[in-house]
Amino acid sequence: MNWKTVAKILGKVLIMEAVMLCLPMIVAAIYGENTYLSFVIPVCALLLLAIPTFLIKLREDEKNIYAKEGFAIVAFAWLLMSILGALPFVLTKAIPHYVDALFETISGFTTTGASVLSDVESLPKSVLFWRSFTNWIGGMGVLVFLLAVLPKSNVGIMHAFRAEATGPNVGKLTSKMGHTARILYGIYIGLTLLEIVFLIAGKMPLFDAITTSLANAGTGGFSVRNQSIASYNSLYIEMVVTVFMLVFSVNFNLYFLILTGHVLKAFKNEEARAYFITVIASIFIVAGNIYASSVTAIDNFGTALRYSSFQVASLSSTTGFSSIDYNAWPTLSKVIFLFLMVIGGMAGSTAGGIKMSRFLILTKSTAADIRRMVHPREIVTVKLEKEPVSPATITNVRIYFVTWVAIFILCTLLVSIEDFGDFMTNFSASISCISNIGPGFNLVGPAANFSGYTYFSKVILSLEMLFGRLEIFPLIVLFSPATYRK
Amino acid sequence: MNWKTVAKILGKVLIMEAVMLCLPMIVAAIYGENTYLSFVIPVCALLLLAIPTFLIKLREDEKNIYAKEGFAIVAFAWLLMSILGALPFVLTKAIPHYVDALFETISGFTTTGASVLSDVESLPKSVLFWRSFTNWIGGMGVLVFLLAVLPKSNVGIMHAFRAEATGPNVGKLTSKMGHTARILYGIYIGLTLLEIVFLIAGKMPLFDAITTSLANAGTGGFSVRNQSIASYNSLYIEMVVTVFMLVFSVNFNLYFLILTGHVLKAFKNEEARAYFITVIASIFIVAGNIYASSVTAIDNFGTALRYSSFQVASLSSTTGFSSIDYNAWPTLSKVIFLFLMVIGGMAGSTAGGIKMSRFLILTKSTAADIRRMVHPREIVTVKLEKEPVSPATITNVRIYFVTWVAIFILCTLLVSIEDFGDFMTNFSASISCISNIGPGFNLVGPAANFSGYTYFSKVILSLEMLFGRLEIFPLIVLFSPATYRK
Repeated sequence: MNWKTVAKILGKVLIMEAVMLCLPMIVAAIYGENTYLSFVIPVCALLLLAIPTFLIKLREDEKNIYAKEGFAIVAFAWLLMSILGALPFVLTKAIPHYVDALFETISGFTTTGASVLSDVESLPKSVLFWRSFTNWIGGMGVLVFLLAVLPKSNVGIMHAFRAEATGPNVGKLTSKMGHTARILYGIYIGLTLLEIVFLIAGKMPLFDAITTSLANAGTGGFSVRNQSIASYNSLYIEMVVTVFMLVFSVNFNLYFLILTGHVLKAFKNEEARAYFITVIASIFIVAGNIYASSVTAIDNFGTALRYSSFQVASLSSTTGFSSIDYNAWPTLSKVIFLFLMVIGGMAGSTAGGIKMSRFLILTKSTAADIRRMVHPREIVTVKLEKEPVSPATITNVRIYFVTWVAIFILCTLLVSIEDFGDFMTNFSASISCISNIGPGFNLVGPAANFSGYTYFSKVILSLEMLFGRLEIFPLIVLFSPATYRK
Repeated sequence: MNWKTVAKILGKVLIMEAVMLCLPMIVAAIYGENTYLSFVIPVCALLLLAIPTFLIKLREDEKNIYAKEGFAIVAFAWLLMSILGALPFVLTKAIPHYVDALFETISGFTTTGASVLSDVESLPKSVLFWRSFTNWIGGMGVLVFLLAVLPKSNVGIMHAFRAEATGPNVGKLTSKMGHTARILYGIYIGLTLLEIVFLIAGKMPLFDAITTSLANAGTGGFSVRNQSIASYNSLYIEMVVTVFMLVFSVNFNLYFLILTGHVLKAFKNEEARAYFITVIASIFIVAGNIYASSVTAIDNFGTALRYSSFQVASLSSTTGFSSIDYNAWPTLSKVIFLFLMVIGGMAGSTAGGIKMSRFLILTKSTAADIRRMVHPREIVTVKLEKEPVSPATITNVRIYFVTWVAIFILCTLLVSIEDFGDFMTNFSASISCISNIGPGFNLVGPAANFSGYTYFSKVILSLEMLFGRLEIFPLIVLFSPATYRK
């Protein structure tokens, strides 16, 4: 492992977080809050940690780094950012215990949106802004941001960028990585601003519009209201949020295609079609289910559609906003929700889950293998987006799935050691964290939060969120003893 | 598809079932029950269906058949046996509705042991015997039996034997398949008789001892008592059953090794060690969990060990007997149980689940792939029982796992369409059926049964049981349109 280069890049990440921590200070200034020091202290800590890395001198041969270093950079960057990013919560006493604050921060950066807070409305606006802002930063990724703002592309950051991006294959928009990163962030900022405008048009207060859009863009789902989106009690706002939750779970490459005039090509995207067919089918099945069921007391199909479309968009985009307590809905809806939570959004989006493209490769390759078994002489190829999928990619996706299931089962087991949750609580909490959604069912349902778990379980769930957001392999490199061997 | 050969072998399977249906008639005679006609009618139906197949003449070139035919034979054999084997339940009015009777019969043959009956003690002894006997027949398999009793080995039956045996690789005991089948059935009968003797020694009534041993040997778990093993209220009987449940979830090849003097080789078996380490660890964790928990009211560690060892043996061997209502146990125990239910027993045993050897190949190959990722230049081989595992086997096991998960999710979704069960009920019912266990949790827990589901869900769960017992691929061949194309 080329530790010097890893450290140099981590130094840049820390500086970046220090700059980002200045934004909540501006919010504190605007609202006259006395929380400056709680942000200044972490900024100083970040700078103190970062400065030594700028003194490291690299020989020319030390600049060559590989995928392994990319994984390590991403894993360490996200851990360090969370460890230091949690400080404002503790220092403002918004979340007095450090483990709780770390849980909340990892939940924010990984765009999970699971919270230990039951009364967010009593918190300072600067803290709420930082909380929502972590969702936004984590959504597109910190290494992508670094790549976008640095004047020239750095090989190390490029490897890290690949490790941080979501999905089985990182699509190249242009031949230059730095250019790609700038386009991605441009689209990201543009769409976020668009949502702010739409929400303000619906008479949402400015602060709420900004924080909601930040949390929505990252598909994180932190809200500044105790009742989440339900508290605005507005059909218009629910519709805007529904649409934007789906917008941010789409592969950003498609927006690039649309912006460069290849609209048809974007609409022919196979992953997008599979994703939207799944979403629309789920909306109608869930609407029918809650309309027909006697337990929900919804006797109007339009109302059923309103709730089901919001909730399907929220869970399949892995945002986790809520407009109603769906915990009381019938079993069929819950099973569909759990299925959507596992699949998540599209590759190359800010959404979590195993991603629709992986799901397609998994089902198609298995179908092809079964076909080969029934017709041993036939030549069967697996195609995605009209291109053959390489055996290496198929193997990678299968490994990813098996490892995902293994981590998920292990964490469900570990959080069940304490006697807090029933099976559905722990099972859904575990899915919710590894898929970066936020709420689950029963004791971690949309009307509840994660504060009831012990610190041990909170650490386990935090790790699960990181495994989910970073797509497993960076953390495996981090925890692998071989990484630290000479 | 070589239909003529398929039909000829199916004819033999039907004759075999007709012969087996004579046993409950003997039971009826002994107990003076008036149920003869209910067994004579299906026997006549079986003979009428079987006779035409004996008139089929095969040309020499039609005798060559392949794996595909083997799969088809197994799928049709199990379906036909269940369809006709359900008749005695309907004709005796023990289970008036045919779909219920079919569910009970498929549950019997697949060694699941899930029941629609709430009061088995009121049924005629001949019917109870047939019910337990289906567990025994299904445990070792009908094609294995056919291979054992036929004078000379038939290529078609040999392919079917491979398709019916459990686990990723069918171990050969001797060079001749017929000989192998006879050894397997010899061990099977011997161990069953041994259990009968042990149970009678514990003052269990003779009829109960025979039926309990039959159901135990197949790891099916049908009991002739409403309270299952709990009704005998005997520590000795519980201990005997605990040991024999584990005995029948061990690869029968190991007994062959022990019988032929290779005791050390048998004890060095990697799958067996992994299986018993899992079982023993689970017993102690569950015992500690129910002892420490306040919800179970077990304040003696010995009692906790008694219940946990029985229940761990019952679920990991996929038998499904119960000695207590574990539905009230804490979440950690339930999560461990669900995990054991998914893994199941060893390959080459009568147990269900994905099998410990598949689980080992799955985890080892994934660990190897991760190792390859971290150390790209290292040569990593996957070994099981000190032999390298071929890439084809690894791929097969991965396909098996993905397909297993897909069927499991789909069936959970389908049985959730009706408003009967909560999530835990449907989730555990689905695992219980695909892993051929019997009871699940909540509404299908050990103190309940499957009668509350609609006929639609019962058909789905029946299919899931068949998918589990036949290890997926025979049924895929059965449902594949290509099978019926010229």
